[in-house]
Amino acid sequence: MGRVVESREWYLASYSPEGVPNSDNLKLRTLTLSLDSHSIPEGHVSLQILFVSVDPYLRTRLTGTLDGLYIHQYHLNQVITAYAIGKVVGSRDDKYTEGDLVLLSAPVAEYCIITSSIILRKIHTDTRISLPDYLSALGIPGFAAWVGIMVLGEAKAGSNVFISAASGAVGMTAAQLAKIRGCRVIGSTGSDQKVKFIKEELGYDDGFNYNKESDLDAALSKYFPDGIDVYLDNVGGKMLEAVLNHVNKYARIPLCGMISQYNKVWTEREGVRNLLNMVGKEVRMEGFMLESYWHRYGDFATEMEGYMKEGKITSKNKINVGIESFLDSLASLFSSSNIGKVVVQVNKA
Amino acid sequence: MGRVVESREWYLASYSPEGVPNSDNLKLRTLTLSLDSHSIPEGHVSLQILFVSVDPYLRTRLTGTLDGLYIHQYHLNQVITAYAIGKVVGSRDDKYTEGDLVLLSAPVAEYCIITSSIILRKIHTDTRISLPDYLSALGIPGFAAWVGIMVLGEAKAGSNVFISAASGAVGMTAAQLAKIRGCRVIGSTGSDQKVKFIKEELGYDDGFNYNKESDLDAALSKYFPDGIDVYLDNVGGKMLEAVLNHVNKYARIPLCGMISQYNKVWTEREGVRNLLNMVGKEVRMEGFMLESYWHRYGDFATEMEGYMKEGKITSKNKINVGIESFLDSLASLFSSSNIGKVVVQVNKA
Repeated sequence: MGRVVESREWYLASYSPEGVPNSDNLKLRTLTLSLDSHSIPEGHVSLQILFVSVDPYLRTRLTGTLDGLYIHQYHLNQVITAYAIGKVVGSRDDKYTEGDLVLLSAPVAEYCIITSSIILRKIHTDTRISLPDYLSALGIPGFAAWVGIMVLGEAKAGSNVFISAASGAVGMTAAQLAKIRGCRVIGSTGSDQKVKFIKEELGYDDGFNYNKESDLDAALSKYFPDGIDVYLDNVGGKMLEAVLNHVNKYARIPLCGMISQYNKVWTEREGVRNLLNMVGKEVRMEGFMLESYWHRYGDFATEMEGYMKEGKITSKNKINVGIESFLDSLASLFSSSNIGKVVVQVNKA
Repeated sequence: MGRVVESREWYLASYSPEGVPNSDNLKLRTLTLSLDSHSIPEGHVSLQILFVSVDPYLRTRLTGTLDGLYIHQYHLNQVITAYAIGKVVGSRDDKYTEGDLVLLSAPVAEYCIITSSIILRKIHTDTRISLPDYLSALGIPGFAAWVGIMVLGEAKAGSNVFISAASGAVGMTAAQLAKIRGCRVIGSTGSDQKVKFIKEELGYDDGFNYNKESDLDAALSKYFPDGIDVYLDNVGGKMLEAVLNHVNKYARIPLCGMISQYNKVWTEREGVRNLLNMVGKEVRMEGFMLESYWHRYGDFATEMEGYMKEGKITSKNKINVGIESFLDSLASLFSSSNIGKVVVQVNKA
């Protein structure tokens, strides 16, 4: 008969054009799945999901409108997906055997049966790297940080680097990479506790709480007396505008995401009024999506695993337990309540 | 005794933070100059100014605030300067003799005495190229068009290219360069007469009058059913925002200038609300100033003179006569009243 489980999964009940997604938009339901190898199709594996990565970009897939990040919208009544780490419990593919740990974009569920072709990589555990690290510094956020700082930002020794959402999953890795490159790194984040954290645990040279700065321009004048060479933008809006008043000649602004703008329809987003500064300062602003950089993923993974094993890069993960915590975890990204990478632990490893 | 002339020149009487500069800001005065070689210092030449180039960027030097293009502000009570063609009337430099024609950034005056080191190049007249062409297609606007389209825009055969201020000095040259590259080129301009002009005389595939389009988004949907690959931005503001709703993956947006925004202080400029689209579409937006591309000026000049001699690129120049017409000429840039490059003819050649 084989192993049959009740598996809870999150599905899209209704789109959320603006505001923070809530329980009208995402709901839990229960499926019954037969996980044994003989029950699943050829070329498939069944997985127990251990950890699910909770990232801001997911929010842009819930609007029902294709704009901004232009990632496919989730479909109504269908399970939603996210990057995750799963443990193989059944396999009809010779490359995977029971107990293997894999990284993939998976249903946000307790268990799933998927074609093995969508698996991104196997994970070989290392005592110096935790499983959630594969979703943060070694996962999508870390890869985004690497592309932003090392590839597009062209950060050099002595560059003045500014990072918004500084204690978030991308920001914390980006800052450590910039420090390895010999940059001066300043972060902006949403609480005094986080400012303390990024300075004491992530190696930022300094940082500020944007909620306490009534004048972002004045804050940037204070923290960047020599101007900004690289701004890794994770927030957009007013912060991006303020930065454009402090850019140095030939500054680089890799646009990684704009979390401050995701919960608004585009006509309500904050307008940036000083793009003209980009002309005189010859600034390059460039958006990026990791799909265009997969050919560099190997370079990134090798480099980053090296840094982590040497202790040069650490990752702080906020782990919420239970599949039911996914919606609150997603909402929490917009409330400045987290330090580090938000991960849902769905099952115990 | 030598040749002594009365020379009128424009000087800055007061800064103009916003609005169209007027006769309170710029005023004419008369100087007496001794032009003969023996009256001028070693290493200097005296010039009769023939043509002065009237370009939108000059406006940004009249605000009294260093922002936007970050070009040095003119000084109060000092003569203003602009690119010009002068004829040598006296010389204390062996490299220049009476009658030579030179291109330089000169006082906006009828005559001047300058150190010869600031001369950019001698002009050797050609029957197929008029003197004002050296200030338009072969001058700063043409060079800007070349950098924008050929260097930063990376326009390729088949690229969908959009050019704002399409009948202006930069736009008209940019469009012809893009056509040489095999692109599909659409222009936006401010009157039906100009739309006719750009289609019939500049080779644009199509064009529209932005003053008649109540919905720029709809206009771009109509003219770019396959999206925009390259946007050479000369205007900024609402047009740039509309373009960002129609960009293709990896679109390039060289920022050449933003004439729609020059007469406003930065906080009053039109905010661009949809920069988030740059992330998903992986758009590169890059401002440029020609000072960073002088090392390419020789390449540009050779290529452009070739095109002009072959009749592949033409330049339409709007010539206003008399030094006294400079202020109105400058103001006219902001009223959509000109077709082609605006030049003041100060003296007859």
